[in-house]
Amino acid sequence: MKRIKISLDAMGGDNAPQIVVEGASEAMTRYPDIDFVFFGNKTILKPLINNKHNLSSSEIIHTVEYIKPNDKPSNVIRRGANTSMALAIKSVKNQSHAMVSAGNTGVLMGFSKLFLKTISGINRPAIAACFPTKKGEVCMLDLGANIECDKNNLIQFALMGQAFAKIVIGIRNPKVSLLNVGEEEIKGFTYLQDASETLKNLSKIINYCGYIEGDRITDGLVDVIVTDGFTGNIALKTAEGTAGFFTNSLKESLKKSIFSKLGYFLAKKSLEGFRAHMDPRKYNGAVFLGLNGIAVKSHGGTDSFGFANAIGVAYDMAKYNFIEDLKKKLSITTKHLI
Amino acid sequence: MKRIKISLDAMGGDNAPQIVVEGASEAMTRYPDIDFVFFGNKTILKPLINNKHNLSSSEIIHTVEYIKPNDKPSNVIRRGANTSMALAIKSVKNQSHAMVSAGNTGVLMGFSKLFLKTISGINRPAIAACFPTKKGEVCMLDLGANIECDKNNLIQFALMGQAFAKIVIGIRNPKVSLLNVGEEEIKGFTYLQDASETLKNLSKIINYCGYIEGDRITDGLVDVIVTDGFTGNIALKTAEGTAGFFTNSLKESLKKSIFSKLGYFLAKKSLEGFRAHMDPRKYNGAVFLGLNGIAVKSHGGTDSFGFANAIGVAYDMAKYNFIEDLKKKLSITTKHLI
Repeated sequence: MKRIKISLDAMGGDNAPQIVVEGASEAMTRYPDIDFVFFGNKTILKPLINNKHNLSSSEIIHTVEYIKPNDKPSNVIRRGANTSMALAIKSVKNQSHAMVSAGNTGVLMGFSKLFLKTISGINRPAIAACFPTKKGEVCMLDLGANIECDKNNLIQFALMGQAFAKIVIGIRNPKVSLLNVGEEEIKGFTYLQDASETLKNLSKIINYCGYIEGDRITDGLVDVIVTDGFTGNIALKTAEGTAGFFTNSLKESLKKSIFSKLGYFLAKKSLEGFRAHMDPRKYNGAVFLGLNGIAVKSHGGTDSFGFANAIGVAYDMAKYNFIEDLKKKLSITTKHLI
Repeated sequence: MKRIKISLDAMGGDNAPQIVVEGASEAMTRYPDIDFVFFGNKTILKPLINNKHNLSSSEIIHTVEYIKPNDKPSNVIRRGANTSMALAIKSVKNQSHAMVSAGNTGVLMGFSKLFLKTISGINRPAIAACFPTKKGEVCMLDLGANIECDKNNLIQFALMGQAFAKIVIGIRNPKVSLLNVGEEEIKGFTYLQDASETLKNLSKIINYCGYIEGDRITDGLVDVIVTDGFTGNIALKTAEGTAGFFTNSLKESLKKSIFSKLGYFLAKKSLEGFRAHMDPRKYNGAVFLGLNGIAVKSHGGTDSFGFANAIGVAYDMAKYNFIEDLKKKLSITTKHLI
């Protein structure tokens, strides 16, 4: 059985390197066929790793430099080739199957494009991630990599999203929709309508289900939702904001009286399933799809459970040959992408 | 004291005309200085209105035709001049101060543009509405009237939103932001950056606060959020969908055991404030801003409380001279809109 080698940017994220090491250890208990390579300061990392028995065979690549949370991509991409993040990404080319970082998103995107390059047939990589729905999970992309998109970008995103949902959510024939302001054919931008038309003609290789509106994203009717990076970023953040607003308002209300506090105590067990399903740590791990290598972004402020889930995404993509699967689909569809 | 005359499309909406009449009666108890004109089938309307003592002095304009929920705007705009909706809108030009309809949104928008025309200085009208935030309410526009927007559209929307928030939410100097994918100046489309630049230069007439991201819409940091109709529609619907998803999942969880049911019972009173603040009926009443007349769209499926709130929006706009206020601001800023 092929073992999966995963490189970790041990210095990226609000709680690095502790959370990175703890997350790796947690992931190892779930996937014992992982080998980890930690990129970061050996002096700090060594004792942390020694503390975790299941990480004893891990490799450490010593780096002095690292990317800071507020570094501007344009300032550090050229000069940061020896940072823990850059070296972890470069290692995906020759040494490991995937990498995970909880560091600066813009810089990670920049390095990934620079070192991994896009797959032939993909014009631009996109950011994808999964979210909870009434029925399970949905994968959405692009979440912010490309402000402006054309018809071909959307079709490529659809193919990438399909391969991703198949492997990471585990759906055999994922349903794919385009995000739009209505379900009728005449709605939205011309490039959206053109993409929709082409996707209909690709029915042999993609299970395209037409447009979907914003209020149905969480309905679980489809498995992949494709949109441009501007709209996707705003939709994602609006959903996060609304969810946070609801949760906080609810908490405040439940603290109001002794009765509501007691009520909350009684309902707590029943609410656990709800909380577990909504837990953002469960959906941690945004991916730069379309690159010749697997690079996964963890939330900067996550804990070890969240970081382990981001590793899980990288593991699934490497283990189940995401890139080969996507390349196969692309070779069939290239003639449609004009 | 000037009385406010409001025309009602009595035949529009899922539960028309009952809800329209009941909503009017409810609004009348809040604003006794309204005179209503009902447009619709007199035979059905007469007994409903007679049943409400405070509507006894209302006028009824008999119409046979009415717009159906699924009528396509392109099919009915030219031929529907005698429908209850069209006649109610036309009446705003000469007979009344504002109109409210719970009917077909696309047709209402079409008729409004055709009969009321846009205010000089406004290129395109926009749909605006209010939503709950952590601190109160926020007004957002455009929610779907204009798929594509340019710099000038956004600046005009900002001025319209400011006048709207001042009158309908009651904020003396509303804070205005542009929706974007980041808060830094270099983020987003060029036309967004240009609009931002111009709005900064209009600091004497508009309280512009820069960009806002999707996750902060509900934070209550600003009073008006401006965006194009595509993004606005998707953000609005995503928020609605997420809110519905949360509420339903929560309800399901609370039904799970006898303990959680008892818990809910105990917490019920404390949750009432939360529910009241989130109640979508409270925020009913989307407005087509930028027209030479006040046209308010109620949700099609609302009840009398929701419809009364939509009437409340029309009332406030008419009573506190929304259109005159906006025209004044426009005359000062026209030289900046190039």
